Amino acid sequence: MLRHRLLAALVTLAPALVQAQEDPPLALRGMGSFHVGGREAVVADKPVREVLLVPGGVPARIDANGPYQVEAMYVQYHLPAAERGRVPLLLWHGGGLTGVTWESTPDGREGWQQYFLRRGWATYVSDAVERGRAGWAMYPEIFAGEPVFLTKADPWERFRIGAGPGSYRTRTALPGTQFPIEAYDDFMRQVVPRWTTTDAAQLAAYRALLRRAGPAVVLAHSQGGMFATRAAQAEPAQVRALVLVEPAGFGEATPEALAALRGIPVLALYGDFIEQDGRWPAIRQRGLDFYAKLRAAGGSVDVVALPERGIMGNSHMMMMDRNNRAVAQVVQDWLAARGLWR
Amino acid sequence: MLRHRLLAALVTLAPALVQAQEDPPLALRGMGSFHVGGREAVVADKPVREVLLVPGGVPARIDANGPYQVEAMYVQYHLPAAERGRVPLLLWHGGGLTGVTWESTPDGREGWQQYFLRRGWATYVSDAVERGRAGWAMYPEIFAGEPVFLTKADPWERFRIGAGPGSYRTRTALPGTQFPIEAYDDFMRQVVPRWTTTDAAQLAAYRALLRRAGPAVVLAHSQGGMFATRAAQAEPAQVRALVLVEPAGFGEATPEALAALRGIPVLALYGDFIEQDGRWPAIRQRGLDFYAKLRAAGGSVDVVALPERGIMGNSHMMMMDRNNRAVAQVVQDWLAARGLWR
Repeated sequence: MLRHRLLAALVTLAPALVQAQEDPPLALRGMGSFHVGGREAVVADKPVREVLLVPGGVPARIDANGPYQVEAMYVQYHLPAAERGRVPLLLWHGGGLTGVTWESTPDGREGWQQYFLRRGWATYVSDAVERGRAGWAMYPEIFAGEPVFLTKADPWERFRIGAGPGSYRTRTALPGTQFPIEAYDDFMRQVVPRWTTTDAAQLAAYRALLRRAGPAVVLAHSQGGMFATRAAQAEPAQVRALVLVEPAGFGEATPEALAALRGIPVLALYGDFIEQDGRWPAIRQRGLDFYAKLRAAGGSVDVVALPERGIMGNSHMMMMDRNNRAVAQVVQDWLAARGLWR
Repeated sequence: MLRHRLLAALVTLAPALVQAQEDPPLALRGMGSFHVGGREAVVADKPVREVLLVPGGVPARIDANGPYQVEAMYVQYHLPAAERGRVPLLLWHGGGLTGVTWESTPDGREGWQQYFLRRGWATYVSDAVERGRAGWAMYPEIFAGEPVFLTKADPWERFRIGAGPGSYRTRTALPGTQFPIEAYDDFMRQVVPRWTTTDAAQLAAYRALLRRAGPAVVLAHSQGGMFATRAAQAEPAQVRALVLVEPAGFGEATPEALAALRGIPVLALYGDFIEQDGRWPAIRQRGLDFYAKLRAAGGSVDVVALPERGIMGNSHMMMMDRNNRAVAQVVQDWLAARGLWR
């Protein structure tokens, strides 16, 4: 509160100074991207086609039979010139989404990628297997099952932006939501198809990423929380901390798998409006049950319900909500308190 | 030659100095991403399903009927603190690929995104409609036709890396190729499915990008060359120059469409091994025919065959070949000579 008043005074007295403090130039010692993981898969018995790939072009003979490179994931990194994170920060998106989750918000503000980069974290933003720049493979020949596509109504009603089933038809948002609803269509432009049958391939690629970029802090959202927890259980030496943003799935609960997480502190973050939702109380409860098992096995878990910290109105997409910096600050402070930032 | 000797001497005498000159820290005044373009499409008469999106999770009711946000494209920008390009540089990839084309090379060197950013160009690297982070839509309900998938043999044999049909089986590369063949699998990890039926949607989104980020220089590869030329014909006020890297398709050839390009200088770049290829002589000839029409209509086109400049061994993927900086330098010098860089 005192800090808010001080900031308000600074904004009144010296807005240019405050702006400069918020958005100095970003000095990078490097940036780049790579793909990691995956395997070769062979397809046979498909017809060979002559395909005109470009109108008026020269036909190409496309033989769909043969080896494909599949199930890799895409990773883009930005390395700050003055690194303050003790290890890199890996940002893992949720279901039906890509690494764009962490970039600019749908209404054009800076996202968590820029927030943490500005604080000296080497950031690795990735697209899981079958999403975005990772590409996807022929189905049903290589991927089992069919992709799931989300209508514009689905995240509105399921991500606690609107007030549950039926609320998209009237564009009724939850009162007090921090989601930038005027940019909802731009959020939907970020949504990509997903499968429900590729979990093993996704986990394998995430493990390959940890072996390449770790040891690291893994910050994961929703479906990504399941991959982060399982990847940490499989590669515990590569993970220094787990930040789970409303995880939709969890780790293995065998004694060995729980013991693997003993040395890895966990922060679990939950937003607003959970009690009034049809599914989120159960999703959160599954998380609380898992954290209890983890604590019983000697692990360390901090659960933060943002409203209890006075941070109100957050949807499932809290990294792009209007108060996304306040939420990021909770993560930043927690990481700093664990000695992972200097 | 003298320049090479001088550089060799410098490398011997002061390697740290040369390295520092090559890779100083990157100072950015900003970075971010957005989606642009597209439309709403409505799907009806699909069954409603209960889907378990996460193992052990809470089932979600997925109703595939309703409105979808489709056919937008994805754009990521990096803005240098010291801008030297007079307008932004837009980098448009080719067929079956994404903006990753311009990022780090498959073998981990800096790509053209970093090359031009380091020279003070604001870079906008994009994924066309249906590729990468742009996402893709249900077919055949929204996209017509089926996607095309490329085997590992296809680009090897079609992009002048190997010596044409049959050369992948024995991994026979063209003698003297500059493509980093040891990282060929990593290149194939960048390849994504594509359609042959989405050209109109892709062009519409590229036009929307030009209206948002232009006026700009557009640097386009392969299939992207067709979109760049057509988008410039439709939005000539938004394009200051066109750089076409082995374009696989071209613009409209009506008098009006050719006249629209009169004020936009064009550079067309071609690599090595074209004469010995089964398809590339015809693809290049179609380009030469189009450039002739454009010149006759008052346009300005420079055609550069890299081997004639002493730059040998380039594949269709010259932006990731080992000598990718030498090729980029041709583009950079041409842009500077046209007053587009200070």
